[in-house]
Amino acid sequence: MDYPSKLIEEAVTQVSKLPGIGKKTALRLVLHLIKENKESTFALTEALNKLRSGIQFCKHCHNIADAEVCSICASHKRDRSILCVVENTNDVMAIENTAQFRGLYHVLGGVISPINGVGPAELKIESLINRLNHGQSEVKELILALSPTMEGDTTSFYIHRRVKDLQVKVSVIARGIPIGGDLEYADEITLGRSILGRTLFN
Amino acid sequence: MDYPSKLIEEAVTQVSKLPGIGKKTALRLVLHLIKENKESTFALTEALNKLRSGIQFCKHCHNIADAEVCSICASHKRDRSILCVVENTNDVMAIENTAQFRGLYHVLGGVISPINGVGPAELKIESLINRLNHGQSEVKELILALSPTMEGDTTSFYIHRRVKDLQVKVSVIARGIPIGGDLEYADEITLGRSILGRTLFN
Repeated sequence: MDYPSKLIEEAVTQVSKLPGIGKKTALRLVLHLIKENKESTFALTEALNKLRSGIQFCKHCHNIADAEVCSICASHKRDRSILCVVENTNDVMAIENTAQFRGLYHVLGGVISPINGVGPAELKIESLINRLNHGQSEVKELILALSPTMEGDTTSFYIHRRVKDLQVKVSVIARGIPIGGDLEYADEITLGRSILGRTLFN
Repeated sequence: MDYPSKLIEEAVTQVSKLPGIGKKTALRLVLHLIKENKESTFALTEALNKLRSGIQFCKHCHNIADAEVCSICASHKRDRSILCVVENTNDVMAIENTAQFRGLYHVLGGVISPINGVGPAELKIESLINRLNHGQSEVKELILALSPTMEGDTTSFYIHRRVKDLQVKVSVIARGIPIGGDLEYADEITLGRSILGRTLFN
């Protein structure tokens, strides 16, 4: 496509590098910025620059943080005996939004995926073992909250094997029919597992 | 939603101001930037800052330009006797991509829309009249290429009334069934108009 300006072309190229944004959407966003006043563009770029320069990762759980230790790890209201292992920050935010978990987290930063060149060494698994092996470790239970995909399951198995000699209970989040979901439309694997993993009616 | 960092919260707020981007998409984009290296974020913000600081509008046609006069108005290969009136830059790019028009453009910067507080004074209509009224004006034909919506039609009518005493032919782009479109699925108004506006088979 011919752009009326080199500046637009460069901006479209950069914006369309973002995931899920193609050239057409990028152009629409860029033309929107031109229509708005300059300050709104500068506020946007300043926020992104500050974010990228200032962001830190918690030294304990590797979650995104504003300081050396994230607000969850620093809180005295959290239960230090339960650790929930998740893939990334989105998952921490999703679980926090349920308000059902008051323990601490451990963010792996991905899952084992040989096809993408991600092995255990690329993830924060060693750091998790150290956290559990640590002399003053209070952790009694490890909840594996990874996606029920091949990669997620592989990572769960790997972690389970690595920690099985430690004095820590390992659990995995329940898999089954989603609340509000329709049995008719559930896939066989989920439905089959939900029967095998049935719990007592109470 | 609770964000793990103030920097993320501010970035999400700014990104979600863009059209068609909600808080969830904004968060996904922001977390993507954190995963990538710093340079890609800085390249993005620099392109946007440069765009917003450096962008100019052609003094003749009001299209986006890198200089005082846009590349189309400056070109000696364009037919200066035809002027195509469009709503905005996207339309110029769309018509240029068809390679069917070799005249000049006039970008109104919007259409008359009382509900949004846009009257003729907010658009580049006076500038269009001046362009036609100018002593050395070579313009013989004005093509109105505005969207066939109520606002677009109102704007077309208004421009037509304003220029009808000038020595210039006014035409409007053809409306009808899109090429490749199915008669069965066309709305009645388009289909009705396409019958009224039939042309000789050749």
